[in-house]
Amino acid sequence: MNNPILVEVLRGSLVESRHRGAVAVADADGGTVLALGDVTTPIFPRSAVKALQALPLVETGAADAFGFGDEELALACASHSGEPGHVTGVTRMLAKAGLDATALRCGAHWPMAQPAVAALARATGEPSALHNNCSGKHSGFLCVACAKGIDHTDYWRPQHPVQREVRAVLENLTGAALSDDRRAIDGCSVPTWAIPLQNLAHAFAKFATGRCLAPERARAAARLRAACAQKPWHVAGTGRFCTEIMQLFGARVFVKTGAEGIYCGALPEQGLGIAIKCDDGAGRAAQAVMAAIIARFLPLSDAERTALERFVHPTLRNWNSFEIGALRVTAAI
Amino acid sequence: MNNPILVEVLRGSLVESRHRGAVAVADADGGTVLALGDVTTPIFPRSAVKALQALPLVETGAADAFGFGDEELALACASHSGEPGHVTGVTRMLAKAGLDATALRCGAHWPMAQPAVAALARATGEPSALHNNCSGKHSGFLCVACAKGIDHTDYWRPQHPVQREVRAVLENLTGAALSDDRRAIDGCSVPTWAIPLQNLAHAFAKFATGRCLAPERARAAARLRAACAQKPWHVAGTGRFCTEIMQLFGARVFVKTGAEGIYCGALPEQGLGIAIKCDDGAGRAAQAVMAAIIARFLPLSDAERTALERFVHPTLRNWNSFEIGALRVTAAI
Repeated sequence: MNNPILVEVLRGSLVESRHRGAVAVADADGGTVLALGDVTTPIFPRSAVKALQALPLVETGAADAFGFGDEELALACASHSGEPGHVTGVTRMLAKAGLDATALRCGAHWPMAQPAVAALARATGEPSALHNNCSGKHSGFLCVACAKGIDHTDYWRPQHPVQREVRAVLENLTGAALSDDRRAIDGCSVPTWAIPLQNLAHAFAKFATGRCLAPERARAAARLRAACAQKPWHVAGTGRFCTEIMQLFGARVFVKTGAEGIYCGALPEQGLGIAIKCDDGAGRAAQAVMAAIIARFLPLSDAERTALERFVHPTLRNWNSFEIGALRVTAAI
Repeated sequence: MNNPILVEVLRGSLVESRHRGAVAVADADGGTVLALGDVTTPIFPRSAVKALQALPLVETGAADAFGFGDEELALACASHSGEPGHVTGVTRMLAKAGLDATALRCGAHWPMAQPAVAALARATGEPSALHNNCSGKHSGFLCVACAKGIDHTDYWRPQHPVQREVRAVLENLTGAALSDDRRAIDGCSVPTWAIPLQNLAHAFAKFATGRCLAPERARAAARLRAACAQKPWHVAGTGRFCTEIMQLFGARVFVKTGAEGIYCGALPEQGLGIAIKCDDGAGRAAQAVMAAIIARFLPLSDAERTALERFVHPTLRNWNSFEIGALRVTAAI
């Protein structure tokens, strides 16, 4: 099917580019609140499900065993920008489990933001696995293995007990059968399973409310949500959408980006889960759509609506800061 | 109309993302050789027409007056990576006209490639307008003003004689009327005019062959093409598609990227011009489509076909260099 155009990119008065995609909003019982476009074909949620992948870290008692607080738990759910505070936090997570950066198998990459690249280049020269945006998630996986006394060497492989447990958690929350023919390799080398948007939205409604979850899993979800609400900078970084939205709304909104135009999120007070995929993988469009969905389903004060507007209809500026265009969420939403 | 899906992004065995777009291939007489999708709605060609914008630099005699060689002319056509050799070259262009970086009005940005960002951060600390990918084009505009003895202060504004001349050149080559309601502001602040893909393809066929152009314009086009073929690194930079394709094919292929999923190009021996726009602005898709169009219309040796294959069907690797997927140009092309 042809997914609808969700976002138009304006330059001057003309549409320069357009982004198609699909959106699912669901409640914890699996009821469909909104289904735009194809919400039934499995798609790779990528990093948007990191908070679900972090549930075993809390449920197994590993987080308590190593004395993790909100910063560590937020980092376990993060696609962080590799800023110094993120690197320090991940280093601390590993140290609490008796490990260091040599245990990480996520690969190294330069930080996402060019100022962070420049700062790193000036300070230490080269990026390490600690700077990888997934290093907090990987540290969480390592801590689960260490707390259980399992060899952590191959913690990233699909057959490792940690990844098997993550897969079981994803199946439990999404209700989707994650067969091997739906499995691919993520940017940081752990498995990523293709899951329909409607199942992802359902999973995040359960994550947001604890409904239809075992009591320990519901408590773990609440603790991870509280950690992200308390430490949103650790979930992403300076100027990032996930960080700024959760700074704005606190525990009322959970949002998490994934590569290739994915956003997942939840509105706990409304009992709703949200899953968005842009066909073309564009993050700029997925985040404008997420902002529009929040504006549609979350009761907002006038001040909040005004604050959210710059995410729904971001102004585009050029290298001289001239206003050259805007993103416009379409009437489809 | 719905443009066709031109490129699919595979992760493992599943399609993760997809890119729609339109393609026009034309000859110098305006004959349509290929029209896929909507080739008649005006789109912003952005930096893909820099070689056309550079024609006045040669035609007016400014390039000769300042003793420009292939490197300077290639830089005038470039979206360069801000590597040291690019910055040195642009500095030299400006110096030959008695100017320096303070005359540039393109704005400053960090180089595109993170290694170049890191190198710059280690060396000098901050980017200047010289590092802007458009600094060579802007230097060309400044040189036209200087050679003509015109005040160059506002060289970037639509009303300035240099931009009026650029507009006339674009109208002459594309055959499109560039009314003000089709004008927007480019990333570097000069005007960008929306032009249909079929007109852009026609323009590049004329640029490639000199047919239907005044003799001085045809000579200027040939000189710019020769400069880009001789110095393809100056047109883009290390590891960039434009550079690698022109290194591979020399004067047989001209290609130039533009922001928001644009590629323009030409096959001079075949007398063909090419214009590509991905609906969503994705450069990765536009360049795979350009590679596929070259493979379709340019006679290739077996070795050349093999060398081109990695651009038509690029393998995607993650931070550990594991092969995780591929780009696949669809049967539409």
